[in-house]
Amino acid sequence: MPGTAPTDELFLAHFAELSRFGATERGGVDRQAGTPADGEQRRWLAQLLAAEGFDVQYDRVGNQFALLELVPGAPYVLTGSHLDSQPTAGRFDGAYGVLASAHACLRLAAEFAAAGTRPRFNLAVVNWFNEEGSRFKPSMLGSSVFTGKLDAGTALAVRDGQGVTVREALESIGCLGDGEGPSAAFCAEIHIEQGRSLERDGITIGLVDSNWAVNKYEFVVHGEQAHTGSTVIADRHDALLGASMLVVAAREAADRYPGQVITSVGQLSVYPNSPVVVPSRVELVLDLRSAQMPLLAEADAWLHERIAAIEAAASVTIEQRMSHGWPVTPYQPEGVELAAKVAADLGLPARPVSTLAGHDSTNLKDVVPTVMLFVPSVEGISHNERELTSDADMLAGVAVLTEVVRRLALGALAE
Amino acid sequence: MPGTAPTDELFLAHFAELSRFGATERGGVDRQAGTPADGEQRRWLAQLLAAEGFDVQYDRVGNQFALLELVPGAPYVLTGSHLDSQPTAGRFDGAYGVLASAHACLRLAAEFAAAGTRPRFNLAVVNWFNEEGSRFKPSMLGSSVFTGKLDAGTALAVRDGQGVTVREALESIGCLGDGEGPSAAFCAEIHIEQGRSLERDGITIGLVDSNWAVNKYEFVVHGEQAHTGSTVIADRHDALLGASMLVVAAREAADRYPGQVITSVGQLSVYPNSPVVVPSRVELVLDLRSAQMPLLAEADAWLHERIAAIEAAASVTIEQRMSHGWPVTPYQPEGVELAAKVAADLGLPARPVSTLAGHDSTNLKDVVPTVMLFVPSVEGISHNERELTSDADMLAGVAVLTEVVRRLALGALAE
Repeated sequence: MPGTAPTDELFLAHFAELSRFGATERGGVDRQAGTPADGEQRRWLAQLLAAEGFDVQYDRVGNQFALLELVPGAPYVLTGSHLDSQPTAGRFDGAYGVLASAHACLRLAAEFAAAGTRPRFNLAVVNWFNEEGSRFKPSMLGSSVFTGKLDAGTALAVRDGQGVTVREALESIGCLGDGEGPSAAFCAEIHIEQGRSLERDGITIGLVDSNWAVNKYEFVVHGEQAHTGSTVIADRHDALLGASMLVVAAREAADRYPGQVITSVGQLSVYPNSPVVVPSRVELVLDLRSAQMPLLAEADAWLHERIAAIEAAASVTIEQRMSHGWPVTPYQPEGVELAAKVAADLGLPARPVSTLAGHDSTNLKDVVPTVMLFVPSVEGISHNERELTSDADMLAGVAVLTEVVRRLALGALAE
Repeated sequence: MPGTAPTDELFLAHFAELSRFGATERGGVDRQAGTPADGEQRRWLAQLLAAEGFDVQYDRVGNQFALLELVPGAPYVLTGSHLDSQPTAGRFDGAYGVLASAHACLRLAAEFAAAGTRPRFNLAVVNWFNEEGSRFKPSMLGSSVFTGKLDAGTALAVRDGQGVTVREALESIGCLGDGEGPSAAFCAEIHIEQGRSLERDGITIGLVDSNWAVNKYEFVVHGEQAHTGSTVIADRHDALLGASMLVVAAREAADRYPGQVITSVGQLSVYPNSPVVVPSRVELVLDLRSAQMPLLAEADAWLHERIAAIEAAASVTIEQRMSHGWPVTPYQPEGVELAAKVAADLGLPARPVSTLAGHDSTNLKDVVPTVMLFVPSVEGISHNERELTSDADMLAGVAVLTEVVRRLALGALAE
């Protein structure tokens, strides 16, 4: 529908269309990075924006950019999020932010063209590759390469559980480009909160001013295969018992700091995983998060001190194979202030929040001034097919994002 | 090599040949039921025995029989075990017993032919289908159908983790027959101990007089998917935490009865198993075993009482989906006595033992008089590529089994 005005109604219609890619029976989506469903939604987004004059490009790790060059040679205000999802996910996580960014830029393109406005910066919509990290690790892979935190060659060689590389997955959906993407002067992202604080307090717009610190670990618990039916307890080296004790200890670490530290084990794989074999190897991914770095360090140290006791109790060895993480870091205060002013001008209740989850903007803010916005999630439910944000909140978010991008493009933070 | 005398040397040569099917780099085997490697070893066994005049047949659930009819119309002494293995298994578990049975029958066939002996019963070597239960559940599937404990149609419809049915797997390796197999007058099985009691005490032959009781359960822990990064602990329903607490509780149940009760969780699968998603569902298989049924009942009751507390602590629900098991049951005392006499006649140290693990003979003894023999396992290691039984112990076992089958065939227990 080229030429159709980018109204609120059109946004909601487009969101309904987008939600059909990889749709699940229970109202969610399954469109992990680089799958056929991801390819379909990327082609749909490309057509939507190309029809309005945007130049759609892919960089060397599959980040998708739709560029509108209004000022030849000037850098871009880059606004976007990610379309990839968890295996059984909600419709809003990431996808809402990409579509909101597309509509913000469509609105500004129409406005600037009608008024003859020449902004200071160009506009670009971005769909970052593999934010979720469920198919390819680490999460936020595309934005990590874009911001120079991860080597492109390393990223392209990452394999999924079936042995398929990022390069092969991107080639299979025709989304492997070259180059490093556009030059960014400012970035913006809008996302659902994935928590319940905004909903609980009747706030429409969260102004993200910092991210929680995270320590992530891959542990491998090594035991010894044995017959479950004939091997007496004293002779066992049960990797699953050791792993289970580690899962329980991780929760205990969080319980020592109620509301201040959270811990999780989301992934755990057992080998050989036969009913009658004592497991010889368990691999698991564990993370600890806190807004207060001293508490994170305390909880982390406590958990690591427990490992020796677990090794002894289960007669196993626990190997820490990989770790990464990030500290508490602020978003640029001038960006938070700009967004606060926009929300106030639009009469929308807003307040600063800290993000517990990582986002592509967590990477981007470290290299370019970045504004991050949240809209409420019903009951805080996320990474779940029941994830929901109301139409009214989605539309309020699009309005705020549009105005933030407008001011950034016009140079509000340029000096 | 038809006509080659079934000597000890030939047994060891055949065992080395058999160990090549599905061989792993670390000296073990991977030949799960109904896989191509299982098909290969079955064809090899069929050729070996057909060349010596045995009639090789498959019943309706893929049990493989090699029949030597010496007395037209008489029932059979059925001796055998299973060739299928765990995913990374040792060379001895099951395979030793099938080959020992084949050689016992080859020796007796040669002796009876040379001496013109007309035994009272016919001879049959059997390779039971899917004893291990790693690919298709339940374990001991083939002997369960043969003994009328499991419906053949139900067994054929069982699916593996990839959705392949028993029927499809058997058809793919050309091992689906019809009928119910030969009529058995007596059964015999020889197996490695898979524990260390015989080795520790210098005993060569274990005379199995009973099996431990077992309770097996499939549990499903139900939680709710949530974002590991943004969902506070109080809002979580973490299925993996609940499952881990259940694994730890199972070990605690065993620790209450040291050496008398053993418990295991060998299989545990997490959904959606993504590093950043609180798991919504964990399925696990748990078993409890004891030679003393009152202790088994106590431990089982204690574990089940813990479930409500685990549900509350992890905010999950725990569903018990399936259960089966078997009580302590004796092997026929006259069979144990016969085997003891044979070992004494051959000058081999022997003593009665109870089997902790289930075996095909555990099923067979419930419908027909059955003799079960063990040979030592080095360090008791089993369900492991390092599984080992010495050549001398293997050959001693073949000698005892041959004489047991000989006496059974001649009618030693017929009255």
